[in-house]
Amino acid sequence: MLELVDLTKSLSDEVYESVFPDLEIRMGEVQRIARAAGIPVILVFEGWDASGKGTVINRLTQALDPRGFKVHPIREATATERRYPWLWRFWNATPAAGQWALFDRSWYGRVLAERVGRTLDKGQWRQAFDDIQTFERQLSDSGAVIVKYWLHISRAEQKRRFRNQESNKATAWKVGKAERQQHRDYERWRRAVEDMLERTSAAHAPWTVIEATQGRFARVKVFETLLHAVQAELDRCAARPAAAGRPMPVPKRSPLREHGILDRLDLGLSLEGGAYEKELDRWQRRIFDLEHRLYVAQIPAVVVYEGQDAGGKGGNIRRLTRALDPRGYEVVPVAAPTAEEKAHHYLWRFWKNVPRTGHITVFDRSWYGRVLVERVEGFCAGDEWRRAFREINEFEKQLADSGAVIVKFWLQISRDEQLRRFKDRQETKFKQWKITDEDWRNRNKWRQYKVCVEDMLNQTSTSYAPWTILEANCKLYARIKALRTVAGALEAALR
Amino acid sequence: MLELVDLTKSLSDEVYESVFPDLEIRMGEVQRIARAAGIPVILVFEGWDASGKGTVINRLTQALDPRGFKVHPIREATATERRYPWLWRFWNATPAAGQWALFDRSWYGRVLAERVGRTLDKGQWRQAFDDIQTFERQLSDSGAVIVKYWLHISRAEQKRRFRNQESNKATAWKVGKAERQQHRDYERWRRAVEDMLERTSAAHAPWTVIEATQGRFARVKVFETLLHAVQAELDRCAARPAAAGRPMPVPKRSPLREHGILDRLDLGLSLEGGAYEKELDRWQRRIFDLEHRLYVAQIPAVVVYEGQDAGGKGGNIRRLTRALDPRGYEVVPVAAPTAEEKAHHYLWRFWKNVPRTGHITVFDRSWYGRVLVERVEGFCAGDEWRRAFREINEFEKQLADSGAVIVKFWLQISRDEQLRRFKDRQETKFKQWKITDEDWRNRNKWRQYKVCVEDMLNQTSTSYAPWTILEANCKLYARIKALRTVAGALEAALR
Repeated sequence: MLELVDLTKSLSDEVYESVFPDLEIRMGEVQRIARAAGIPVILVFEGWDASGKGTVINRLTQALDPRGFKVHPIREATATERRYPWLWRFWNATPAAGQWALFDRSWYGRVLAERVGRTLDKGQWRQAFDDIQTFERQLSDSGAVIVKYWLHISRAEQKRRFRNQESNKATAWKVGKAERQQHRDYERWRRAVEDMLERTSAAHAPWTVIEATQGRFARVKVFETLLHAVQAELDRCAARPAAAGRPMPVPKRSPLREHGILDRLDLGLSLEGGAYEKELDRWQRRIFDLEHRLYVAQIPAVVVYEGQDAGGKGGNIRRLTRALDPRGYEVVPVAAPTAEEKAHHYLWRFWKNVPRTGHITVFDRSWYGRVLVERVEGFCAGDEWRRAFREINEFEKQLADSGAVIVKFWLQISRDEQLRRFKDRQETKFKQWKITDEDWRNRNKWRQYKVCVEDMLNQTSTSYAPWTILEANCKLYARIKALRTVAGALEAALR
Repeated sequence: MLELVDLTKSLSDEVYESVFPDLEIRMGEVQRIARAAGIPVILVFEGWDASGKGTVINRLTQALDPRGFKVHPIREATATERRYPWLWRFWNATPAAGQWALFDRSWYGRVLAERVGRTLDKGQWRQAFDDIQTFERQLSDSGAVIVKYWLHISRAEQKRRFRNQESNKATAWKVGKAERQQHRDYERWRRAVEDMLERTSAAHAPWTVIEATQGRFARVKVFETLLHAVQAELDRCAARPAAAGRPMPVPKRSPLREHGILDRLDLGLSLEGGAYEKELDRWQRRIFDLEHRLYVAQIPAVVVYEGQDAGGKGGNIRRLTRALDPRGYEVVPVAAPTAEEKAHHYLWRFWKNVPRTGHITVFDRSWYGRVLVERVEGFCAGDEWRRAFREINEFEKQLADSGAVIVKFWLQISRDEQLRRFKDRQETKFKQWKITDEDWRNRNKWRQYKVCVEDMLNQTSTSYAPWTILEANCKLYARIKALRTVAGALEAALR
């Protein structure tokens, strides 16, 4: 896609002066309208060294309300960032609804500098293309506008600019080893850029090649294409308003559903106190030891707890964490999203909380809320929860690819047992805080939840992130099974 | 996703009799409604040998109006089919709007039998996952419902069934070498199936695992989930009617557009008669020789001609085909799609016409109509032509991956030259058939076409399928440049 680019393109001073001020005004207007419409905008600026990315970004930010955007200069990953899945730092930087994120370099470094510089092997940068496509598709599906620019100059022009910069004391620092290296390797870089443009151009996240020999021309083209892209999304939203969610109706009785995963559990499984204490001690010691070895091996681990109200998640989690060194783990309680969280992609708050290498994160409820409470209550549209199965699998795959162990627990109790526990909570003073009207309301949606849970288990139990169902009528049994499962998963990862 | 499947599931005769007749009636109804709505339905039946695919398909077809579906039993590719890109035979079988296609085995053979049987190398079956995802996404984006079933039985159950079949003369033939092989390799197969389910489940083309130990249960589950999927698409269509296309407005004047690819061509390039004859002879001889070598090497080639009205495509193509042995090439003239073609995905008619190994197909106009005339005239919606750039790149990539040489020509003449040729056609009796009112109307949309052509050249010139622009004010020059380009591309492929 670079072949037909005309690098001699330019605008006269006169033409530039006649169009640019108007573009600047329109940019501010479009920003305001997009903010009102709650559309997040993601801009990627990639290009040759000395192609003028900084200047373009600078002029763009001057046209924007500073409360509405953030510039992210992306350099090599820091030591800390390298302890997370590679897209983690970019997920953290995704903009809230109505906000603009300007990336001065981006996730594409993975398939440019890191590929050309051979700091990644072929499998890794190939995988990166998949990860990038997933990342951009997920953001775009949730309503983000993504526009990507490649600022293009010729090898000769780059040389001229480097010479200019070097001849001036104030700018000589700009031409360092990396820049000289890129210039020498211009041809290998060009091929990598071409490959990148071909593999990652999509209608929902198009690349625009900017002829950047002349700054004026580059500026006008970036402004024009950007205005066009945001306007097109505004038009699309106006023409096809987003579908609203609706509460899930009571599922029709079906002979198929009577034989679900949850029906064939043996909820009578139990453990008596003496055996429990012995087992508890044994598995907690084992896990304490494993946690240390996990730290040495720098393997991260994710433990997800989902289950019905009064299923015993809290007590179960406490038995696990008591086995852990507090410096090595974190419990993330997941409640209804805050306003800030709601303004982001629903996976954003979970990406922020994935463990770094050698650490364990326990999620008390999780991203599965999307296909449980949000589906049941209609907090998200039908398309959204249907898409979520795949999105969640992709998210967990990326965690697994980064080396993480993933253990997921579903705590299942019978309807009668839940009633017993609810009543117990109401009648016991120090437990009353644990029971709310919402718990009773959820209980009335037992059949809806059953369908959702079975769909969830079927759709998201994968080889890299399998579900384990805890038969939880007997809390003691469920705790020991959880500890045993965690220990087994950690041991498998250490082998 | 197989781990949590309960293979003991079954329905009593009584329950079955109380639900199945109703499902059959509803199936017929849904088929009629989907036909009226013009929704194509694609059903994939995969499963273990002896899992009962045939019976399920059989019962399903009994419930359907036979004028509305076709069953495609997919076996190993024939020698002829192997001469095309591997998805070619499946593209050919995609259903028209309102029709249902039932695949008894499918494109997933590529990542099952061919993967497990090691007739493909790792690169090939990995690539197949990408190809499959592209294929299903393209079909789904165009409005098709895709539902995929994996009929699951245990290894022990399979053994039991094989023994039954073998003990009966009428069915003993069913258990052959391939079946016994699968049974021995059950575990390797299971892992491949698991991988397939994980990689290719998406909201727009979900897998449903069918517990197939009992035929009654399998039948009811297939019917219920299928009804649900088609109904969901009908609801979606009702809630969000497809956007209609609108004719492209006259593009606003922009200083950026004045410096497009088309503006900087040197349309004065020309060749005089004597030199032309010499060059023509030289290149036609060269190509005749290359065509033969291409046949020996079994390399397919695609030559695409696009250009303005009166740009000289016809004469140019004739100079190329005169150099070719008629047994080795075919010219496909592309006009407005027929009713049957319109009822399919827009790429369907081009997939049908891709060359087999060793052959050359010349397209006189092509799939680029989507981003030219269809965009200008509003024959397709904005989302559709925007998506088309990527879809076309993917299509050409699959051709290139199958070994094809791809050459694409854009014939460009100046506006004045077009006027001269139009007038000449009107005034010359034997040329009058060549000029219609539509040509004059298109001429009035010169500026719209210019934007479309530049977008097309920018978005779809790839390393594997680059565009060559022919400066065509001088027909002789354009012809020689075309021949030279074809010869160069064929030579490169043969090296």
